[in-house]
This record gives sequence, C-alpha cells and structure tokens, in this order.
Amino acid sequence: MDNRKKWASPGSPIFTGTRKVENLKISLISYDKQDFSFSEIESVEDLPGRIVESRVNWINITGLHDTERIEAVGKLFGIHPLVIEDVLNINHSPKCESYNDYIFVITKMIDLNRDRSMNIEQVSFVLARNYVISFQEDEGDVFNVIRERLKNNDSRVRNSGADYLLYRLLDAIVDNYYMVVESIEDKIGAYDNMFLPGHRRGSLRPVYQVRKELMKLRRAVFPLKETIHVLEKERGNFVSHNTYLFLRDLSDHLRYIIDSVESHRDMITVMIEMSMSAESRKLNEIIKVLTVISTIFIPLTFIVGVYGMNFNPGTSKWNLPELNWVYGYPAVWLIMLAVAGGLIIYFKKKKWF
Amino acid sequence: MDNRKKWASPGSPIFTGTRKVENLKISLISYDKQDFSFSEIESVEDLPGRIVESRVNWINITGLHDTERIEAVGKLFGIHPLVIEDVLNINHSPKCESYNDYIFVITKMIDLNRDRSMNIEQVSFVLARNYVISFQEDEGDVFNVIRERLKNNDSRVRNSGADYLLYRLLDAIVDNYYMVVESIEDKIGAYDNMFLPGHRRGSLRPVYQVRKELMKLRRAVFPLKETIHVLEKERGNFVSHNTYLFLRDLSDHLRYIIDSVESHRDMITVMIEMSMSAESRKLNEIIKVLTVISTIFIPLTFIVGVYGMNFNPGTSKWNLPELNWVYGYPAVWLIMLAVAGGLIIYFKKKKWF
Amino acid sequence: MDNRKKWASPGSPIFTGTRKVENLKISLISYDKQDFSFSEIESVEDLPGRIVESRVNWINITGLHDTERIEAVGKLFGIHPLVIEDVLNINHSPKCESYNDYIFVITKMIDLNRDRSMNIEQVSFVLARNYVISFQEDEGDVFNVIRERLKNNDSRVRNSGADYLLYRLLDAIVDNYYMVVESIEDKIGAYDNMFLPGHRRGSLRPVYQVRKELMKLRRAVFPLKETIHVLEKERGNFVSHNTYLFLRDLSDHLRYIIDSVESHRDMITVMIEMSMSAESRKLNEIIKVLTVISTIFIPLTFIVGVYGMNFNPGTSKWNLPELNWVYGYPAVWLIMLAVAGGLIIYFKKKKWF
Amino acid sequence: MDNRKKWASPGSPIFTGTRKVENLKISLISYDKQDFSFSEIESVEDLPGRIVESRVNWINITGLHDTERIEAVGKLFGIHPLVIEDVLNINHSPKCESYNDYIFVITKMIDLNRDRSMNIEQVSFVLARNYVISFQEDEGDVFNVIRERLKNNDSRVRNSGADYLLYRLLDAIVDNYYMVVESIEDKIGAYDNMFLPGHRRGSLRPVYQVRKELMKLRRAVFPLKETIHVLEKERGNFVSHNTYLFLRDLSDHLRYIIDSVESHRDMITVMIEMSMSAESRKLNEIIKVLTVISTIFIPLTFIVGVYGMNFNPGTSKWNLPELNWVYGYPAVWLIMLAVAGGLIIYFKKKKWF
Amino acid sequence: MDNRKKWASPGSPIFTGTRKVENLKISLISYDKQDFSFSEIESVEDLPGRIVESRVNWINITGLHDTERIEAVGKLFGIHPLVIEDVLNINHSPKCESYNDYIFVITKMIDLNRDRSMNIEQVSFVLARNYVISFQEDEGDVFNVIRERLKNNDSRVRNSGADYLLYRLLDAIVDNYYMVVESIEDKIGAYDNMFLPGHRRGSLRPVYQVRKELMKLRRAVFPLKETIHVLEKERGNFVSHNTYLFLRDLSDHLRYIIDSVESHRDMITVMIEMSMSAESRKLNEIIKVLTVISTIFIPLTFIVGVYGMNFNPGTSKWNLPELNWVYGYPAVWLIMLAVAGGLIIYFKKKKWF
Repeated sequence: MDNRKKWASPGSPIFTGTRKVENLKISLISYDKQDFSFSEIESVEDLPGRIVESRVNWINITGLHDTERIEAVGKLFGIHPLVIEDVLNINHSPKCESYNDYIFVITKMIDLNRDRSMNIEQVSFVLARNYVISFQEDEGDVFNVIRERLKNNDSRVRNSGADYLLYRLLDAIVDNYYMVVESIEDKIGAYDNMFLPGHRRGSLRPVYQVRKELMKLRRAVFPLKETIHVLEKERGNFVSHNTYLFLRDLSDHLRYIIDSVESHRDMITVMIEMSMSAESRKLNEIIKVLTVISTIFIPLTFIVGVYGMNFNPGTSKWNLPELNWVYGYPAVWLIMLAVAGGLIIYFKKKKWF
Repeated sequence: MDNRKKWASPGSPIFTGTRKVENLKISLISYDKQDFSFSEIESVEDLPGRIVESRVNWINITGLHDTERIEAVGKLFGIHPLVIEDVLNINHSPKCESYNDYIFVITKMIDLNRDRSMNIEQVSFVLARNYVISFQEDEGDVFNVIRERLKNNDSRVRNSGADYLLYRLLDAIVDNYYMVVESIEDKIGAYDNMFLPGHRRGSLRPVYQVRKELMKLRRAVFPLKETIHVLEKERGNFVSHNTYLFLRDLSDHLRYIIDSVESHRDMITVMIEMSMSAESRKLNEIIKVLTVISTIFIPLTFIVGVYGMNFNPGTSKWNLPELNWVYGYPAVWLIMLAVAGGLIIYFKKKKWF
Repeated sequence: MDNRKKWASPGSPIFTGTRKVENLKISLISYDKQDFSFSEIESVEDLPGRIVESRVNWINITGLHDTERIEAVGKLFGIHPLVIEDVLNINHSPKCESYNDYIFVITKMIDLNRDRSMNIEQVSFVLARNYVISFQEDEGDVFNVIRERLKNNDSRVRNSGADYLLYRLLDAIVDNYYMVVESIEDKIGAYDNMFLPGHRRGSLRPVYQVRKELMKLRRAVFPLKETIHVLEKERGNFVSHNTYLFLRDLSDHLRYIIDSVESHRDMITVMIEMSMSAESRKLNEIIKVLTVISTIFIPLTFIVGVYGMNFNPGTSKWNLPELNWVYGYPAVWLIMLAVAGGLIIYFKKKKWF
Repeated sequence: MDNRKKWASPGSPIFTGTRKVENLKISLISYDKQDFSFSEIESVEDLPGRIVESRVNWINITGLHDTERIEAVGKLFGIHPLVIEDVLNINHSPKCESYNDYIFVITKMIDLNRDRSMNIEQVSFVLARNYVISFQEDEGDVFNVIRERLKNNDSRVRNSGADYLLYRLLDAIVDNYYMVVESIEDKIGAYDNMFLPGHRRGSLRPVYQVRKELMKLRRAVFPLKETIHVLEKERGNFVSHNTYLFLRDLSDHLRYIIDSVESHRDMITVMIEMSMSAESRKLNEIIKVLTVISTIFIPLTFIVGVYGMNFNPGTSKWNLPELNWVYGYPAVWLIMLAVAGGLIIYFKKKKWF
Repeated sequence: MDNRKKWASPGSPIFTGTRKVENLKISLISYDKQDFSFSEIESVEDLPGRIVESRVNWINITGLHDTERIEAVGKLFGIHPLVIEDVLNINHSPKCESYNDYIFVITKMIDLNRDRSMNIEQVSFVLARNYVISFQEDEGDVFNVIRERLKNNDSRVRNSGADYLLYRLLDAIVDNYYMVVESIEDKIGAYDNMFLPGHRRGSLRPVYQVRKELMKLRRAVFPLKETIHVLEKERGNFVSHNTYLFLRDLSDHLRYIIDSVESHRDMITVMIEMSMSAESRKLNEIIKVLTVISTIFIPLTFIVGVYGMNFNPGTSKWNLPELNWVYGYPAVWLIMLAVAGGLIIYFKKKKWF
C-alpha cells in the first residue's frame, strides 16, 4: 500500500495496481431480443444518455488507473464511494455485497502468461436492474466469446436479463480457471514421471513453484465460492429463478476446481515426501558403498604398512623376523584374504549388498 | 477440458471423457409385481412409446459419447439442459439435485482393473415418479445382479417403486467400493510385513501409489455421503419411508468406507514414518561401522608409516634410531595394540557396539 | 467382505465374522423387584413363551454364525431385516437407530489378550419396553458382574427398567475401555523411560505398534460417544429421566477416554520426534569423531608416506635430500605435531569437542 | 483405575487418587454483610446444625480419601450419588452440570512444585442457594486470599451471594494458571536463547518436557472454558446478573490463557524445527571438512605410496625408473601440488568454503 | 503477572505493562459540523465540565501507569470497574463488550521500530452516545491524520457521530497493519531470492524470526475480526447504518490482512521445506564426492602398499617375486588403472556423476 492510500480517508478513490493500458476505455453493449448495439463511449458524461432503459446494458470499463473518471462513473450511477474504493483497490479478496439498488461483486480473472505463469487481474461488477458494469485495468480476451454470442439473437443470453449476463461473465472467468488447473496438472504430471525408477531426479524447486501457484489460485477461488453463494441468495431479488439454476451449476464448477486444487496440493505433498524419502535411500546407498570399500581396504593397508617398516632385522632377531621367513609373503596374503573375506561375510549377513 | 467445452455456452451437451464403447445402447426394463419385460431400444424416438406408465421403468443408457442422442433423450423426458451437460461432463463430483419433476444424482463407479489399479466411471441417474434413467459410458457388470433379481417376482425390488430401484443401483455401486477398500487393505498388509525385523526393505514407491489411490477413492466417496444425505431429505417426496430406511443403511455403509479410507491413510502415514525412522537407524548403524574401523586403523597406519620412512640412520643418530633398537618392532606392536584397545574401550563406553 | 455378502440383496442375514463358539446359545434373565429367574433356552421357538411381560427380560444370544436362528429371533420380535443384517455384519461402526417399537445399538467390546494386544468384539443391543436383547459371537466375562448384581434384589438395577439394564451393559463395556487405555499408558510409560540419558535406545517399532492400537481404539470409541448421545435424546421415550442422568455420566466417561486417546496420540508423536532428534544428534556425534580422527591422521600419513619413497639420493642431490639431514627425522615429527595441533585448535574453536 | 472401581456399580463412592493428607477436615465459613464466623467441624453430623440459612455458607472439605464421610456429606445435602462418585474420581475432566437444587462444577487446580513441575489437583464445587461446598484432597494455599478478604466486611464478596463466592473461588484457581503459563514462558525463553549464534546447543529433551507440560495444562484449561460457559447460562437462575459480568470476565482470562498455551505450543514447534535445521546444517559443515581433507590427501598418499614400492630397478629398466631421475622427487611434489590445487579450486567453485 | 495483580480482587485497577511516558495526559477534541475545539485537560476533575453535550467529544488519554487517575476517569463516566481493570491489563486479547450505556473495545496497535521489529501497544476505547474515550500508554502518531481531518469542517467525520469517529480510529489502527504485513512481505521476498540457484544459502534463523512475527501479528488481528463483528451487530443501537457500511468495509480489510498472514505462513513453511530439501541434496552431493574419491584411491593405496613391503626376496623365492619381474611395475599400473576404471564405470552406471 503506498502512502497516498494510507493517509487517505475511507472511501477515497485510489488505484493500488500498476497501469497496464494507455487510456480508460468505455464500451457499451445494449441489447434485447430484437436489437443489439455496440458503441465506444468517449466521454463519461455521455454514458447516461446512451443507456437504453428497456434493454440490458453492459458497460465495460478498462483502465482503473484513471481514478477521476472511474469516480465520475460511480457518481453518475449512484454507487457508494466505498464500492468505488474497492473497485480501485486491486488487492481485494472476491466478495459479493448487496446495496439497495445494486449488487457489487469482486472476482479475480486468471490468465496464463506465455511461460505458463499465472497473471491475476481483479474484475469487479455492479449489477443493477437493467445494466451490468464491469471494471478492470486490462481486459484480456476472456469476454470475447460472450460478445460474439450477444450478436446472435437466438442465444439464451439475448433472451434473458442483466442477471444472466452477469452469470455469463462470471462463467467465462471460472472457465478460465479450468485452463489454469489443467496447466498445473500438466506440470505435476511431468514431475511425477521423474520418480519412475531409472530417471535422474532434479531439484524440487519447480515442484515448490507449482505449490506456490496453487496457493495463489486457492486464494482467488476459495472466496469466490462464498461470493457465488451470496449471489444465489439474491434469488427472487436481483437474480431470477432461471439464472439461479445456472449459478448453482457455477457453484458446482467452482467446487470441482477447489477439489482439484486441494487434491493437487495433497499430490505435491506426496511427491515431496517421496522425493525426500528417495534422497534418503540414495544417501544410504552411497554411504554403504563408502563403508564397504573403506572398512575392507583400510585394515589391509595397515597390514601391508606393517611389513613396509624398516626395522633392521640385522640388529635384533625381534625386528620383523617375518620378512625373512620362507612363506612370509604368501602368509600375509592369506591373512589379508581372511580379513577381507570375514568383512564381506559380515556385510552379507547385515544385508548390505 | 478441451476447447470445445471451453468456448461452449452453458448447457451445451459436450462429452468430456473418452469413448469406450462402439455405439449408444438403450435398454428398458419395465416391471411391476406381476410382470417383467426387457427390451433393447433401437431408436431414441421409440422410447416414450415403450414406457409403461403403471410400472417401474428402468432405462439404462450406455455410450455418452453420442451426445446428440443423449440430448434427444433429455428433451423427450423434459430434463433441464444443465442436467444433460452434467451427465456428459464426466469430471463432476457426486451430487444430488432436485428439480420439480425429477431428482438428478451423479455417482462414481469404481472397478478394479486386472492389475488391481482403479478404474473410475461416472454414472448419473434421473429418478422420476415411475422411471429411473441411468447414464454411463461403459457399463461393466455391476448392475447384473440387480437385473437377475428383477426377474424374480418375489424379490423386494419387484414389490417397490422407482425410488427403491435407485437405492438398489446406488447400493450396487457402494458394494463395489468395499472390494476396492479390501484390495487397498491387502496391499497395505503386504507392505506392513516388510517392516518385520529381518525383512529386506524395498522402495516406498508402492506405498505412495496406494496413498494416491486412497486420495482418488476419497474424492469419489466423500461427496457421495452428502449426496445420499440430500436424497434422504426427499423422504415423503420422491423417496418412500421404506426406501428411506434403506438409504439410511447405505449412509452407514458409506460411513464405514470413509472411516476405512481415513484409517488406511493414517496407517500409511505411520508406515512411511516407520520406514523413514528405520532408514535413519540403519544409516547410523552403517556410519558407526565405518567410524569404528576407520578411527582404529587410520592412526595405526600412520604409526607403521612412520617406521616406513627412509631416513638414513647412518647419517645421524637422530634419524629413526628406533629402527636399530633390539625390541623396536615388538614395542611398536605394543603401542599399536594400546591405541586400538583404547579406542575400543572409548567406543564401548559410548555404547556404539 | 466375502462374495456371499456382495451378491446378497440388502437385508440378507450374512455373518461377516469368524466363528468362535460351537453353538448359538440363548440365555434369559427375567426379573423385577421381587423375583429373579435365569434359564437357558434350547429352541428359539420357546423364547416368546418364556418372556414375562411384567418383568424386565434380558435375552443374551451368543453365536452369530448361526444366521438362520438369529434371523428367526428377529422375526419373532418383529425386528427389521436391516437390523438383523447389521447385527451379523461385525464390521459396523457403533451407532444407535430408533425404530417405532425398539432402539438398536451397536457397540464394540474390547478385551486384552494375554500378550496385551486388543481383541475387538461387536456387541449389538435391541432395547424395547420390557426386554433387552444382546447379540455377540463370543461372550467373554464382561457381563458377569451385572449377572451377579441382578441376583441381589436390593440393587438399583432390580428396581429399574429395561433402559437402566441397557445402561449397565453399556457401562460394563465402557469400563473395559479404561483397562485398555491403562495398558496403553503403561506401554507408553515404558518407552518414555528409554529416552532418559544413559539408556540404550531400541527400535521405534513398538511405539508405532501402540500408535496403531490407539487408532483402532479410537475407531471404536469415537462413534460410541455419538451413539450414547442419540440414546440420551430418547429421554422421555425409551429412556427414563433417571437413566438419562446415568447416560450423561457415561458420556463423561467416554469423553475422558477420548481425551486420553487423543493425549496419548500426541504423546507418541512427541516421543517419535524426540527419538528422531536424538538419532540425528547421535549421528552428528559419530560423524564428528570420524572427522576429527580422519582429518588429523590422513595428512600425517601422507607426510610419513613422502619419506617412505625410494627416490635414490645417490642419483641426484634433488632426490629426498632430507633423508640425509642430521635433524631430518625430528623435524618431520615437529611438522606433524604442528599439523595435528593446528587441526585440534581448529576443531576446538568450532566447538566440536 | 483399580479393580474396586472397575467392579463397582455406577454411583459407588470410590476414591481414585492417592491419599495426601492425614484426615478429612471440614471448615465452615458463614457470613453476611454484618457477620462472619469461621469454625472447624469435627463430625459430619454436626454440619447441618451449623449452617446459617440467612447467610452465605462456604463448606470446605479436604481429604477425599475418607469416602464414607464424603458420602455422608452427600446424603446430608441431598446430592446425587453420581455427583459424589465424580467428586471422588479425580480423573474427571472439568465440567459443569446443573441439577434441580444445585450446580456441580469440577475444576483442576494447578500448583508449581519446587522444581517448577506442575502439580494438578481436582477441586469440585456444589453451588446451592445459600452455600458452596468445595471438595479436594489436599488444599494448598490458593484459597487463603479469599478467606482473608471474607473477614473484611467492606469487600464486594461480603455483599454478594453464594454465586459470587463460587466465582471468587474459580477466579483464584484461574489466577494460578497465569503463574503456570509464566513459568512455561520463562522456560521457553531460556531455551530460545540457546539458538543465538555462538551458543552451544544442548539436548532438546527439556523442550519436549515443556511441550508435555503444555499438553497437560491444555487438558485442564480447555474444558474449563466450556464449564464457565455452562455456568454463565445459569444467569437468572443460580447466577445473578452481577456475577454473570464477572464470569464473562473470567471467560476472557481463560481465553487469554488458552491463546497463550496455543501460541507457546506453536513456539515450541518452531524451536524444534529450528534446532533440527541447525543440526542438519552443522552436519553438512562437519562432513564438508571431512570430505575436503580426505579428498585432498587420499590421492596424495596414493602417489607417495607408488614411489614407496620396492620394485627392483636393477632387474629391469621398466621398474620405477623415476626413482633414479635427477628431478624425480621435485617432479612428484609438483604433481602433488597440482592435484591438491585442482581439488581446492573445485571445492571453491562448489562454494564449499 | 506480578504479584500485586495476583493477590488483587477482581476489578482492581492494576497496570500490567511498563511505563513509557512521563505523565498521564488527557486531550479533548470536541466538534460538530460548525465548531471544533481542542484542549489539554490538566486535572481529571475538570473533564466533565469541558464536555460539550451537543457535540462529539473525543477524550484521548495516554499514560496508563497512572492507575489512580484512570480509575478516577472511570468513576466520572460511570464505567464498570472490570472495564477499567481490562484497560489497564495490557495483556488482553482484542474484544468488544456492550454495557447498558457504552461499548467497550480493546485493540492492538502495531508499529514498526527502526529495525523493523514490531511494537505492539494496547489501545482501548469506550464509545457512548456523544463521546469516545481512547486509552493507551504511549500514543505514537497513528491518530494524527484523524486530528488533521477533524479540523476540516467539510470532512465526513465532522458530519457524523461518535460511532463514525470510533470507526475512523479503528481504521487508522488497521491501516497500520497493512504496513506491518508489507514489511513482512519484503522480508519473505528477500529470503526467497536466496533459493535461486547459485546463491549461497544462509541460516534459516531470520526466516523463523519472521514466522514468530507472523504468530504475534496473527494473535493481534484474529480476535479483532470477531471484535468488529460484535460491533457491527450494534447497528441501530450504538452504530448508525452509515457507519455500519464502513465497519463492514473494515471487516473486509481485516479479512485481507488475515488472508495475507495465513498465506505468508504457508509461504514460510514452503521456504523452510525447500531449504531443508536443498540442504539434504547438498549433503548427498558432498558425500558422493567423498565416496567416489575414497573408494577409488583407498584400494590403489593398498596395492602400492603391498609392493612397499620389505619381504626379503633373497630369503625365499616366495617372497615378493614380482619385485624382480621385468614388467612388474607397469603391470601394477595396469592393475591399478583397471581397478580405478572399473569403479568409475560402476559409479557412472549408478548415475553418481
């Protein structure tokens, strides 16, 4: 939180993200069963005049950094300053709050970057009787499908109200989560193969990376479940019975994603434990080799060292008489073979081979 | 999720699994106390004409890949498009949803393959007043028992309604879980023996494999408990009091399975910890042997090395005079025995033997 | 689950345990304030005639393997087939189910074998207005105390109804749990002493054995708490206010046992961690000794090796001139003492001693 | 549980602790705003005559081992046999039970012994309209403060009822917990210092000791929270509104203690992990030294060993011709310095120094 | 807890912190839409006379060590002695308690010291109809922003009641938490970089330090969430609908902070595990080097040792005849190269390189 935010009084419109697009852009799609119109709005003040009361209006605003104009939009539609503050503060958790005339929903849109890392964008919605306003800094192409379908006047969305439009926008966001979950699934699958026997094991770093991504995903998805639940409770109020059935279905999708996140988290824990157990087995293996070779050859080296001593047999009959024995050298070999053999039998009995 | 699914609008009938059977097959069993008839239905359109209103009708459909005809069945019976979407999306968690005219239930059937790995198949049911529709891609032989019993006109199922038939189908699925749990029990038992003293320990890989299977099983069974619970609440509505008693019993069975899953999971944790603790003890053992042998013989090798030096005693009386001593060689042996003995006493005191 | 069970229809009477006694035996104790009678019943059909309506009747049946006669008993007393199925399926978790005319309770009796391992037996009860039926395969001597007390016509049990008799039977089972908990306590105490300094540590195997026993005990005791709770709710119905007070007390006993199980489990976790930390400290200790001895003597052995080389000083003045120096040998000793001393000071500074 | 307890029927008065005081002692403090009297009661039968109906009476009984007289007290005051059984069974968890005429409360008093180990004593209370009976085996001096304050007729306790007296007794017990928590805090602080760099680390044994004490403390304090909560619910019945406010405050104190226990437990986990991580780092350090010294000197020792061989250069020109070279000896040194230097560079690059 | 506290009766005013400021200071800000006045109050007795009934009055008191005057303030405003006790006992967890005429709130203010360690100060509030009293030992500068804004008669706070003032004070405290969370985030980020390949890893000590700070922060923030929740429930009573909306927003902020704390805790766990896994990999690496070098050169050193023995070939043809062979020396080299080559191939096959 920068200092502007900190010293501001509550309800002050301050953008806490980083600017990603050039300018604030407002697009308006206005439709009913028969008609469909799309327009780019230049000036915020023009907006109210363009709204068609009898139709469903979708006002899509990108460029949250332009806080003044966002605030102006808020005032035009009678939106509480705290809502505008939350729209601009991109560090919010997903939530759904109902006010007298509208419902406010915060969600997190997740895209995959080219390197398959996650890119999280906050998208907020205001749903009123005949319009939906969507706010975000950078749009992405998630909503393009819906725009296409809106042009088709046979589609269900053209025959339904603003609540169904909001559902479709939420559904588009949740559908993207599937893609993210699948990308994580792929990564986990790739690392899981590393544990097959005969594969060389790499660092656990990428596994922990996936775990961090799951933590981020979880943080976006978990509160969204609750958010949809709050929205479902608006049945009969802002949400029609038909849309309610679709929201219930969306809840199911979210539950599936949450289950996947949980299950992948468990999977990663298992993988890390497996890897640590494999490391530990390998260490034992290595040290066993070291011990076997060392404990066999170190005593032998001592024995040959003894007969390498230069005590003068000429001085005293006590000095290394073995050196002059007829079978001295073969005897030493016999002793050494006995020592080595004994140790090998000992290790065999201990099942070190 | 393939892209077709992603770009589809909600309620679109898209099969997310892999085709396992040649063609969609529809079989109809129609029975009451007196009569029983079995027929294979060729064309979906024939279906309504074959249903006997006064009897219980079980329509069993295999071959979800034929989405068009599944959709046609849905339309014929007035089933909501979202239900058909869920029937075809085999990645759903078990759930029970009630609509005005029918109840929709998703379950997971688990079979063991020949290599005792698990094969999970999604089976969905639609229960209405006088029929049950069951949907799956590949049937297996789980429902054969029920078909046999249906032919016997003394059996309880012939004397009960469609709700009892659904219970029997669910019961057949849950009975299969017992087999899976037992197979896992056997595997755990086999690995548990590995920890008896004197056995050679193998890799933990298969233990982790069992743990992954438990995770999968858990994911299928846990939500089913809740599903049955939702079904029980339909008592007096879609579910008769008698069937309710049987569903309560089924809940008990599921609780037993869940308890087993949990307890086996704990068991595996204990086994992994035991194995890691055993590995660590064994490492200590190995390193102790290495240390004892090395610390005894390395100093001795140094000592014999000293008297292997070639300093010329002829040049100076300071150069290795010991080599010419009368008792030089036995003295060195005494020193070496003292060093070795001292170290052995030290290790004994440290309780390393 | 054997195959008979698997292919049977729900409510079929199939015994899932192993036969432990020769024959099914039925004993009947019938009492009120004044009178007491005990009789062994030969044939199931005689049973109804022997029941005294105005008294409390305790029908104790052992020998669940005789499924036909158990089923016959069920039919005589109008017990639901699902209840009889549960009586015979000894893999059930403890539970309490109320039917119109009776309450059905499943519990687990735990005995200690001679080697102090646990022996778990399923005991089921059916409580009606004026009788209690208890079912088990092998009786043990847990209920003997109650039989004795029933003979004494001043005892509280003689002055109370069938509900109090059931309470006493449950109380006898729970009292046995105390014994099991104490046996586990003793085992834990024994292993805890192993961690006192100066004791030789053994394998963790028996500690894990205790942990497995705790898991089993937990599985028997946890659901019993819930079972008693369901029974308490029958206050005013099958259970009198006086017996309710005693059941509440029994709940307290179970809570104590559950607390003990939990606390022992935590204790074992602490013990295992302590042991692993001690192992790890000991490993450090061993390796420190190896390192100190090796790093001191390996360089020294190299030095003496240098002067063991046989380069011919006669050929060239460059070849090992040290060998002919007057103070060559003492100089080598000085160098070696310096190297050893330096390393010892280094290890001291690192606080390895 | 000794066998007497096991074979006894429920409600039998059996003391399960160990006798700590000589005799049962009964003291009676009887007070109202104006008057205060203290007396030691010799015989249980005298007790009812000494109670002043219009005052608050505090009957303090020590010496639970004298079960007969405890039972007699129970009968005199019309206390249920199960309550007397619980008073005498010192293994009970804290609880609060309400009967028609009185409330029964079990708590655990914790004292610190001289060696700062914990001493847990069970204290039970019976609260009726105008008296409080407190039962324990050995008194300690926890209640002395309250006795002193009772003599002061301005104190709040003299102006309040029996419920406030019970609160003050409970408060005295809870105040002692603070002392225990502080003692544990001191111990944790002492061990935490051990982790500062430069300190020699000791065994983790005492840390685990503290963890066991926390487990014991937790077992006494956790159920007490619930106990006070049950007592609070008696507001308007046995507990006046004023005392209720004080009980709410007591709940806060308990919450603080529970929070402390939890937070200290987390702290200890962190400390143990830190210690294990430090051990593991140190092991790496030690082994690194061993490896560096060994891998440098073992090849060098081999090289000098080569030129220590006694192949006879006189026999063949192939036998160790190097020994007669002019620069043979310096060349060997150069080779050895190259080998050592290469290895040192390798270790530097691996950042082992 | 010092002994004064322990022996005191409940409701006694005892300060449990350490004195940080010289004297108790009381400042009064009194405002409504039109007017604003600020004054320092010298004597507690003057306070009631200075309160303007028709305005909102903020009485800020610093210097809790002066318990007598704090108690005097309590009496002047009719505050319950237990509240004053809690104000002075700085070890309280955050809580909100409602009394008839006022609400009592305890919070924890967290500042960062220069070395970025946390400094926790207890701040208590009493909210009545037209005044807020804030109590703390040392003020810090957290409330300065609010003082500034109060001077501006257009600000929302000048147009709202005492409840909104309390909200603003709580908001200022919570805003400071963001700063603390960010500081922790920075620290975690700094340590995370340490795990990039090529970085030298340091001790885990600072990571554990951050973990301890998170534990402290958690202990301050978690109960505050509940506290705000209790405050929200006062809607319609002490809290206006408008302020309620702001409190709901504050709850959201707290939820974000709690989520952050949880997520950072998970992060640290991941980091510690990563570090331990990296240590373990490194240990394997080091030991592999040791094993490879040792197992290759120890056998070779033995071989050259054999031919360093001084057995006298003159005595017997059995004594080291190899020494006189023509190709003896090259043969030994061949043998040694074969041994070394064989071991290298073995290690390659085991994938140790």
